[in-house]
Amino acid sequence: MGIRFGGDYNPEQWPEEVWAEDLELMKAARVSTVTAGIFSWARVEPRPGEWDFGWFDRVMDGLAGAGIEVCLATMTASPPPWLSHAHPEILPEDADGRRRWPGARQHYCPSSPVYRAHAVRLVERLATRYAGHPALALWHIGNEYGCHTRQCYCDVSAADFRDWLRERYGSVDALNDAWSTAFWSQTYTDFAEVLPPRTAPTFPNPAQQLDYLRFGDAALRACYLAEKEVLARCAPGVPVTTNLMPQHKPVDAFAWAPHLDVMALDFYQDPFLSDDHLRAAYVFDLMRSARGGQPWLLLEQAPGAVNWRPRNGPKPPGAMRLWSWQAVAQGADAVLFFQWRQSRGGAEKFHSAMVPHGGPDTRIFREVAALGRELASVPEIAGTRSRAAVALLADWRSWWALELDSRPSTALDHSRLALEHHRPLYEAGVACDVVPPSRELSGYRMVVAPQLYLLTEQDAARLAAYVRDGGQLVVSFFSGVVDAQDRVHPGGCPGPLRELLGLRVEEFWPQPEGAALTLQGAYRGRADLWAEDVVLEGAEALARFTGGPLDGRPAVTRHPYGRGAAWYVATRPEPALLRALLDDVREAAGVAPVVAGLPAGVQATVREGAAGRFLFLLHHGERTARVTLPEPGRVVVSDATGRPEPAAGPGDPAPPADAPVHRITLAPRGVAVIALPGADA
Amino acid sequence: MGIRFGGDYNPEQWPEEVWAEDLELMKAARVSTVTAGIFSWARVEPRPGEWDFGWFDRVMDGLAGAGIEVCLATMTASPPPWLSHAHPEILPEDADGRRRWPGARQHYCPSSPVYRAHAVRLVERLATRYAGHPALALWHIGNEYGCHTRQCYCDVSAADFRDWLRERYGSVDALNDAWSTAFWSQTYTDFAEVLPPRTAPTFPNPAQQLDYLRFGDAALRACYLAEKEVLARCAPGVPVTTNLMPQHKPVDAFAWAPHLDVMALDFYQDPFLSDDHLRAAYVFDLMRSARGGQPWLLLEQAPGAVNWRPRNGPKPPGAMRLWSWQAVAQGADAVLFFQWRQSRGGAEKFHSAMVPHGGPDTRIFREVAALGRELASVPEIAGTRSRAAVALLADWRSWWALELDSRPSTALDHSRLALEHHRPLYEAGVACDVVPPSRELSGYRMVVAPQLYLLTEQDAARLAAYVRDGGQLVVSFFSGVVDAQDRVHPGGCPGPLRELLGLRVEEFWPQPEGAALTLQGAYRGRADLWAEDVVLEGAEALARFTGGPLDGRPAVTRHPYGRGAAWYVATRPEPALLRALLDDVREAAGVAPVVAGLPAGVQATVREGAAGRFLFLLHHGERTARVTLPEPGRVVVSDATGRPEPAAGPGDPAPPADAPVHRITLAPRGVAVIALPGADA
Amino acid sequence: MGIRFGGDYNPEQWPEEVWAEDLELMKAARVSTVTAGIFSWARVEPRPGEWDFGWFDRVMDGLAGAGIEVCLATMTASPPPWLSHAHPEILPEDADGRRRWPGARQHYCPSSPVYRAHAVRLVERLATRYAGHPALALWHIGNEYGCHTRQCYCDVSAADFRDWLRERYGSVDALNDAWSTAFWSQTYTDFAEVLPPRTAPTFPNPAQQLDYLRFGDAALRACYLAEKEVLARCAPGVPVTTNLMPQHKPVDAFAWAPHLDVMALDFYQDPFLSDDHLRAAYVFDLMRSARGGQPWLLLEQAPGAVNWRPRNGPKPPGAMRLWSWQAVAQGADAVLFFQWRQSRGGAEKFHSAMVPHGGPDTRIFREVAALGRELASVPEIAGTRSRAAVALLADWRSWWALELDSRPSTALDHSRLALEHHRPLYEAGVACDVVPPSRELSGYRMVVAPQLYLLTEQDAARLAAYVRDGGQLVVSFFSGVVDAQDRVHPGGCPGPLRELLGLRVEEFWPQPEGAALTLQGAYRGRADLWAEDVVLEGAEALARFTGGPLDGRPAVTRHPYGRGAAWYVATRPEPALLRALLDDVREAAGVAPVVAGLPAGVQATVREGAAGRFLFLLHHGERTARVTLPEPGRVVVSDATGRPEPAAGPGDPAPPADAPVHRITLAPRGVAVIALPGADA
Repeated sequence: MGIRFGGDYNPEQWPEEVWAEDLELMKAARVSTVTAGIFSWARVEPRPGEWDFGWFDRVMDGLAGAGIEVCLATMTASPPPWLSHAHPEILPEDADGRRRWPGARQHYCPSSPVYRAHAVRLVERLATRYAGHPALALWHIGNEYGCHTRQCYCDVSAADFRDWLRERYGSVDALNDAWSTAFWSQTYTDFAEVLPPRTAPTFPNPAQQLDYLRFGDAALRACYLAEKEVLARCAPGVPVTTNLMPQHKPVDAFAWAPHLDVMALDFYQDPFLSDDHLRAAYVFDLMRSARGGQPWLLLEQAPGAVNWRPRNGPKPPGAMRLWSWQAVAQGADAVLFFQWRQSRGGAEKFHSAMVPHGGPDTRIFREVAALGRELASVPEIAGTRSRAAVALLADWRSWWALELDSRPSTALDHSRLALEHHRPLYEAGVACDVVPPSRELSGYRMVVAPQLYLLTEQDAARLAAYVRDGGQLVVSFFSGVVDAQDRVHPGGCPGPLRELLGLRVEEFWPQPEGAALTLQGAYRGRADLWAEDVVLEGAEALARFTGGPLDGRPAVTRHPYGRGAAWYVATRPEPALLRALLDDVREAAGVAPVVAGLPAGVQATVREGAAGRFLFLLHHGERTARVTLPEPGRVVVSDATGRPEPAAGPGDPAPPADAPVHRITLAPRGVAVIALPGADA
Repeated sequence: MGIRFGGDYNPEQWPEEVWAEDLELMKAARVSTVTAGIFSWARVEPRPGEWDFGWFDRVMDGLAGAGIEVCLATMTASPPPWLSHAHPEILPEDADGRRRWPGARQHYCPSSPVYRAHAVRLVERLATRYAGHPALALWHIGNEYGCHTRQCYCDVSAADFRDWLRERYGSVDALNDAWSTAFWSQTYTDFAEVLPPRTAPTFPNPAQQLDYLRFGDAALRACYLAEKEVLARCAPGVPVTTNLMPQHKPVDAFAWAPHLDVMALDFYQDPFLSDDHLRAAYVFDLMRSARGGQPWLLLEQAPGAVNWRPRNGPKPPGAMRLWSWQAVAQGADAVLFFQWRQSRGGAEKFHSAMVPHGGPDTRIFREVAALGRELASVPEIAGTRSRAAVALLADWRSWWALELDSRPSTALDHSRLALEHHRPLYEAGVACDVVPPSRELSGYRMVVAPQLYLLTEQDAARLAAYVRDGGQLVVSFFSGVVDAQDRVHPGGCPGPLRELLGLRVEEFWPQPEGAALTLQGAYRGRADLWAEDVVLEGAEALARFTGGPLDGRPAVTRHPYGRGAAWYVATRPEPALLRALLDDVREAAGVAPVVAGLPAGVQATVREGAAGRFLFLLHHGERTARVTLPEPGRVVVSDATGRPEPAAGPGDPAPPADAPVHRITLAPRGVAVIALPGADA
Repeated sequence: MGIRFGGDYNPEQWPEEVWAEDLELMKAARVSTVTAGIFSWARVEPRPGEWDFGWFDRVMDGLAGAGIEVCLATMTASPPPWLSHAHPEILPEDADGRRRWPGARQHYCPSSPVYRAHAVRLVERLATRYAGHPALALWHIGNEYGCHTRQCYCDVSAADFRDWLRERYGSVDALNDAWSTAFWSQTYTDFAEVLPPRTAPTFPNPAQQLDYLRFGDAALRACYLAEKEVLARCAPGVPVTTNLMPQHKPVDAFAWAPHLDVMALDFYQDPFLSDDHLRAAYVFDLMRSARGGQPWLLLEQAPGAVNWRPRNGPKPPGAMRLWSWQAVAQGADAVLFFQWRQSRGGAEKFHSAMVPHGGPDTRIFREVAALGRELASVPEIAGTRSRAAVALLADWRSWWALELDSRPSTALDHSRLALEHHRPLYEAGVACDVVPPSRELSGYRMVVAPQLYLLTEQDAARLAAYVRDGGQLVVSFFSGVVDAQDRVHPGGCPGPLRELLGLRVEEFWPQPEGAALTLQGAYRGRADLWAEDVVLEGAEALARFTGGPLDGRPAVTRHPYGRGAAWYVATRPEPALLRALLDDVREAAGVAPVVAGLPAGVQATVREGAAGRFLFLLHHGERTARVTLPEPGRVVVSDATGRPEPAAGPGDPAPPADAPVHRITLAPRGVAVIALPGADA
């Protein structure tokens, strides 16, 4: 069906007479798919056990009649007032014991059996009723799990946590060992004594905190799986998904991926940040990689401004189109928005929508409709895939553990460091997967591990095998520090990577705020944030600290190992240095970019498949750029022709030229899709 | 009786032997009025139902004997320990469910029937006892309502809120409609399910929040009215008031005004801010306007430093006199202080008082006594009034709604914007009323509406009628956005003002922090904070944005409408631009200042009445200024003569000259009152 | 036994096979003393009443066998999980009513009878079992009292507070008087109505807050004393101590000192601060002074980085040695660390230890062992003492009261001001005691009182007597303001010091942030933070404010009184001015430094006793410094000889030269100890 296009559709906010206009406008904008029902629970079940589906039948039938497919929500994201009124024990509590009250959304304890039972009951009704409906294309379970209620600390959660721990550890002795409870007199005698890491007089046990993050993720996933089980039973054969937000910490997208039939993402670029496309690029790569390259769905983005930041910038002309195409260029087969029609009331009435308060005679609706037409013009792109020779390792366990309290430096930021390592590859036009350390790596020529603070012996052994077999591995500082239970590996950092990296770290030297380090050697320049006192045990020093108490100590090292090599970076180099280092590793690995010599700001990716090979060129920069194609191709989407003269801007799409082009000029926010030879196979 | 002069008198803090000295010093300072009993509950009712009024009788009798009038408090501001001990359910709770404990003051839930019953019982005793006392001049109900306990979120308040909602909406369906509960599955089935907007996982329903602000104001007013009813019954004929603080958000002074016999204000200028007189000027104008120009009472200010700011600046010589006269110049008929004698203990012992710790041989007492004498020298000023041709619209509903969460920009500050629009009028010497949008406007030549975010159809219609009949109206950005229930008007901003303003706003463009916009056209210069994409529908653009994505779009517009014109400002212009614009509007409206060509820092107002016409000149600036009078007059208060030579300073007042003067020189903090011709009529 | 050397030993974190290695390494590092058992409760009493001491017997026996003495903890610092599980009422609550949960440490309400009973029961077992053990040298009660749980506000604490108040005041009338409850209607009818100062709508009664700080200290001390009573009963004759942290506010070290047999300190210098040795110097002087000069124990410091600051700097080479010697130079007879072996898990695994994760082949262990050897080489230093001619007054009551809310300025910081007055003496090489105002002062030639905000009549009278008898006293601003119950002294500041200082303060002039004052006269330069309007009543003005509203008013005064003089500083002068002033006072008092003309950064102290007289020279600065000794001496500890040529660095200690030296050169972080003549007596 091509690239899906559409958005969240919440008809319960409007009188039925508006619905007909909705369908007309959807057709005008080439909407193919809507997500419906996300917040309809209170409307379909106004009182416990009293059902009102008639209005929703009419919505579904109308959409089917208009040829629009539905990503049907299970409606469990926001329990109706009657439920929390009858069962206040479903309300979540924070680590301070403060209840979180109804009035917004997501006000339920994920461990609540009462909530889960009511949710399952509702999903059974829904699944049974709409199982065979012609509009039904996909199930959407819950909504943005963990977005607001990341963890609950109530007594119900505590009991669920204890069950989860019993399952994980078997015995209280094993728990004591795993949590290092001999410190600070915390040894448990019975599981009954265990509590969530509620606010304590000082730092709570870090292994307890880490397990509570694991448990929180598992508790949300249990909600998801309970609904999924109903759908599989009552409406078999329909794929299911949920909209993840892997840019946030509570939900481990890699752990969820096997339970989704297709990955789906909510992502909101901030128009006030000139580099937020870098964050998007990282998350899009992760989404694509999570299920092995399978196309994914951009389920929510904003047509214009959002309403939940302190200051909410609108998207200037062309930005919405550019960022939508960025998702497609990085593997998305759907471009959807929150939401179809802008609300008159409620907490998100200032969140932009495809149909603004001002109606269809507005810039936003015009840009939306133009994008719909443009996407509909290239249905062949759907289903194609990307190939990457580089993998960047990401691990929620490291993220969770690294950012706990009582660490050498609270200035360590797992997401920022991951982005900093992703950026040089992205800007060079090098395809990069983002995968967990447990993934099979033999297909990659180069692996970048930004901060594997938590690393198991098994994962370390797999990294060693990867290098031994010829891989190039880059590891950054403060990696290999602890095991799965946040216990320091014997002998200290880098623990099980010591032999592979050919060094040990004798002491951490976190840097004070604003301090700069100087590097000499193959990489000369500045670094900051962190340093280490590295003792070489086989590795060679490519760069060393100069000046200060670490004068002459290794800063960047390389250790030939088997048929490959392991590189180590014991500090946070400035961007140009990190880029130079990754370029060197890439050269050693023999990894080439999609387009050589990309101008600044231009993103380049390739998707390919039975329908052909497509080069995407997206211009995030501020000055007109000219790109020489790797081989002549046919322009299928563009703002202008591939001949060098005219500058392509974010205006209406120009008709594609028939002749192959060698070079293309992109204005700021310009987009071009080129069918490369073989594309018409 | 002339301008009242005095302060809060709390004799229970001192042994009786001090009271005699108090009366002597009061006479020396020409004190005419004291506020007594504010915090006397625990002393007059040491145990439930056990009364001890003897000591207070002696206080009242002593004051009466000294010819001093009493503004008698109802003593209900701070419940005694025995009450909260016996009834902890009267303690307020915050939105997180945290109880606020006794130990300070105002520790009661305004909705508590227990608190109200005890308060009413006390007021009955008081009113009955002192109804005919010769010292009694005025009743003072409660104290600074909403100062610390702005809202309570406890279960008692929740029940009261539900009653209030039932009264307001009649049915749960009407409530659902008003609150747009179809969003996020919040539809209520029964009023019993409704709660205060306690802390939720994310933004609570904004209409619920707005109604809770309304309810909070109403709950405090209900406390006030319950006591007022007792006074009317037990002590009829004595005027009643309470000390409002309209510079704060919780209490809507316009809604309270009809229930006060005279407006009364507590206001504390910050000596560390060079422009706090501007904030005072706005609030004083509001106080004067709230009851249609009736003289009001400055019930509390500080003789020197306060103690509740992070750093509490003393008032340098002359400042206390200047700021006291500012209140009179803007319509006050009373200048009172907190408090008479500085406390030795308790939370406000470092708050200055008329009699400092050091006793009467101190700068503060000397300045207090000099001011008392000065005010007593011009009794004829009392009762005179001001006339204004300009009105500035202020509306608590807009204030409350605008600053809720989930808005396009959290940087919008209703009070700041109001002050910014008031300032150019104040500095030009133009009299300005501050009134709600529901006020009759036909008497004004010019109306300024700084930010009517919330605007009903009715109020919009009244504005249109005002302009149609010849008025000049200035409306600032983000106005006319929502209705009384925070629902966006159909078609979007400016909703019901669209025809009047001759434009529509297609998209809001809140600006990032630190960003500057540039305007071209009739008003050239900078703007910031906010912009809009304005589509003209009849209005002409007087200035346009230049550069950036809004290049060429209208920034300031004017729309001739009927016999008047409506001006619109789609951004926040720098001060000089806003001043130029308001000058142009003023010229169009034919509004002249009290004194033409006022030097920087000099405030000029006129009060007039049967006793004559008085010009007030107050110098807030830092350099000596010379003012040419609009017509020759007789100096009745001054630091020096009206002849140009001597500079007037904040020293002892000089004797008024007999001859009319044409010109007067004011030193910094100088004050002059001139009786203009007709003043002796 | 010489200077004790060692650290916290927590063998329960490790399998027994590690213990043997521990003993070997301890011997290698010349460890003489370990603190054991701090967090062993859960291990020795795994279930209520079920005891397991066998493993600890083996630990004690092993240590005894290795000739290592034990500072034996009472193990009560962190209650085991079973205790708070069975008795959740022992958990503390904060002022907002939020419970503090287990999972860390110190999670008990100090007033809890349940906690205290369990603790006493445990201590009885321990004391009985180990009373005569050959390793036992010292009892260590609890741990870091008040470090995390500074105050508890629960109902149990409330009841205990009421008992404490009944004891203190006798009657509720006395309480009302002491607390000035006539203000804000707070008069109590019965003790039962009194509560802790839990969060109130605004500032709670300050006298109530002050008494709650007193009570909090007393409640912690009651825990300590309850255990001490058991030890005295069950293990008589063994000295007891606890590790205090007088750099923190909750525990009044002067009030505890009489109950300790030897003072003990935990202190962690921050390697990222270049001047943290100044803070250390102040605290070390206080520790030495608290029990009249008796040598004290540095019970905890870090060998390298800690883990609980936001960014935790390592100690560069030599720093650990330098700062350890600083403690000895200022009177310590023990240099111990937290902890012996770095934890693999738990909240402090990134806190450095004597044996790091990397084992003994590390810089840290090498430096530790070198220090152990060095300290062991000079056993004769132990037991010697310092003499000071200057006393600096410190008072927890003033500290507590000064920093309450509702003060003229929240920018006043008692610790900072104390440090600022201590620094010029320290840097000049002048020995200074830090003592409470109640201490006998006649032995001192000069007394500095940085900020005696709270001052009783009795203490003031003692100060007057001190000056009358010939003393030189310096008093800083905002002193003598309130009595013991935070009531302003009649007549205002400086209350009972008025006659002694020969002046009164008519008004406080706290300064706005960033404002500077200018002084003229004997002390010319800048000041900030605070000013006062001083009226001279016998004193002479040595410096005056110039410019601004206080132009010409006294800023620094001197009042000859009896045979001495009282100096007053009405502002916060810049460091050079304060130094000049204290130099002048010192000259008037005839107080000379230990070494004249000390180079910048060099600290100089003397300890003396039967074993001789030792001059300590410690170099905290960044440039090599040459020190001329007051008289020739013999180098007993040094980095190089006393001949001027070689620079002494933080490397391995050089062998002491035999010949007396006249001059010594110190490199940065250099240390020298010189036996002065008479040292071999």
